[in-house]
Amino acid sequence: MLYIIGLGLSDETDITVKGLKAVQGSERVYLEAYTSILTVGKEKLEEFYGKSVTVADREMVESESDAILENADKVDVSFLVVGDPYGATTHTDLVIRARELGIPVQVIHNASIMNAAGACGLQLYNFGQTISIVFFTDTWRPDSFYDRVAENKKFGLHTLCLLDIKVKEQSIENLARGRKIYEPPRYMTVNQAVEQLLEIEENRGEGHCTPDTLAIGCARIGTPSQKIVAGSLAELVNVDFGGPLHSLVLIGSRMHHMEADFVREYAVDKTTFDDLVKKSIGPK
Amino acid sequence: MLYIIGLGLSDETDITVKGLKAVQGSERVYLEAYTSILTVGKEKLEEFYGKSVTVADREMVESESDAILENADKVDVSFLVVGDPYGATTHTDLVIRARELGIPVQVIHNASIMNAAGACGLQLYNFGQTISIVFFTDTWRPDSFYDRVAENKKFGLHTLCLLDIKVKEQSIENLARGRKIYEPPRYMTVNQAVEQLLEIEENRGEGHCTPDTLAIGCARIGTPSQKIVAGSLAELVNVDFGGPLHSLVLIGSRMHHMEADFVREYAVDKTTFDDLVKKSIGPK
Repeated sequence: MLYIIGLGLSDETDITVKGLKAVQGSERVYLEAYTSILTVGKEKLEEFYGKSVTVADREMVESESDAILENADKVDVSFLVVGDPYGATTHTDLVIRARELGIPVQVIHNASIMNAAGACGLQLYNFGQTISIVFFTDTWRPDSFYDRVAENKKFGLHTLCLLDIKVKEQSIENLARGRKIYEPPRYMTVNQAVEQLLEIEENRGEGHCTPDTLAIGCARIGTPSQKIVAGSLAELVNVDFGGPLHSLVLIGSRMHHMEADFVREYAVDKTTFDDLVKKSIGPK
Repeated sequence: MLYIIGLGLSDETDITVKGLKAVQGSERVYLEAYTSILTVGKEKLEEFYGKSVTVADREMVESESDAILENADKVDVSFLVVGDPYGATTHTDLVIRARELGIPVQVIHNASIMNAAGACGLQLYNFGQTISIVFFTDTWRPDSFYDRVAENKKFGLHTLCLLDIKVKEQSIENLARGRKIYEPPRYMTVNQAVEQLLEIEENRGEGHCTPDTLAIGCARIGTPSQKIVAGSLAELVNVDFGGPLHSLVLIGSRMHHMEADFVREYAVDKTTFDDLVKKSIGPK
């Protein structure tokens, strides 16, 4: 059996009791470690499970999946994913490959940012499609996700923005010389995401991500140091959210006053917040 | 401390290790039991926790929340929710009330249908807003969610439909006579949801939920008896999905071929599925 097990959002104790049992009964345990992170590392997990854990990078999951799946028709193998297994595309690939090899798969679900984002005080059913914001480079400043935001905004829906993570990146020089030397990991902050959105707004000018747009910055959701701050993009660009992971929610105009009441507790400045809410959704 | 703890989707072992520890350290434990269900009852949970559990119905949570919160500033109290705490509106109320009383709150997240729906093979970021389909009665046949489906469809997005649950309902006669006698619980099936959608389509005629519309019926997601079947609404109306809980996903036209490949494994009839996919998103 291949177990694909969500680890949740915070530390080693966010695994489910069912997931823990599956890990402890597995012959091999892999940890997918390139689409998200916990607040603890592999060593902590190994200590908690009483098992050795192999870190699987993108290359391994995408091109050596058969090694992960080896003899999983006979013994149990666990593949651990931060959040929930169905958050990222590559795990679908692994399930499809397992199917082809006739290996039974059991998914053990857990929280992911896709549902834990409800912690910001907005109702999950008022969210439109989720977007990913990638790091701008000097030569590559993609803005196609702005169209997705525009679609959500058209119907007054909120937009969850997942922020880029770069791990095991090679510099252009190291890549050219074939040197497997990797840059330190980078995690996009709320501030960087907001800066990029404001820059795109400057170019596109459709009014979906202006300095006055209401949003909620979220850091380390589900962990003891969780930080949630609501305000205009102009306000959020200067808020210190601390360490990773960050995400950002753009508030839609169909927000209920009940949602606004909850979010207000997180406002940088309650007066500005009330003004912008009134402009966006009208008085109570 | 008030702990609000997600129980996940299946049985007593889907609680996280962190959640279990909080339950075991709590003086009182409440179980919210009207917006969703596990595959096991209160007795099984009590046995697993080694703790007595009080079932909290809607009335208790909505009008007697102060009893739940009593002295939670001094002792630990756990409030258990099937799925994730932020799936349903009422728990936001409880958080707001706790805030007013100066009671610290810790949410322990878990999987909910909002993210576990990814099990159907569609990518979560391609979903638009989530809708709820309520039971039609002879005199009340609401269809406002059809507009939400139309909005999602306009941009080719998938729609997760949560299906109605009726627990502790009184018949009109018992209600009128003030008799606290309750009807057996009712859980909407995929078939009932599809029938209602097709009826609404007959009236509205905008083409969003026709017999040819591609959808995925999901039953008991995250449990060992999970059943996922894809097909046209005309096909799904006759599929036996077994016991609750059910949900339904309407497929949007922005589906990738990779999503279609995954979903195809669940098709009632692969030929019909391929034809409808080709019509909807074009050939590969």
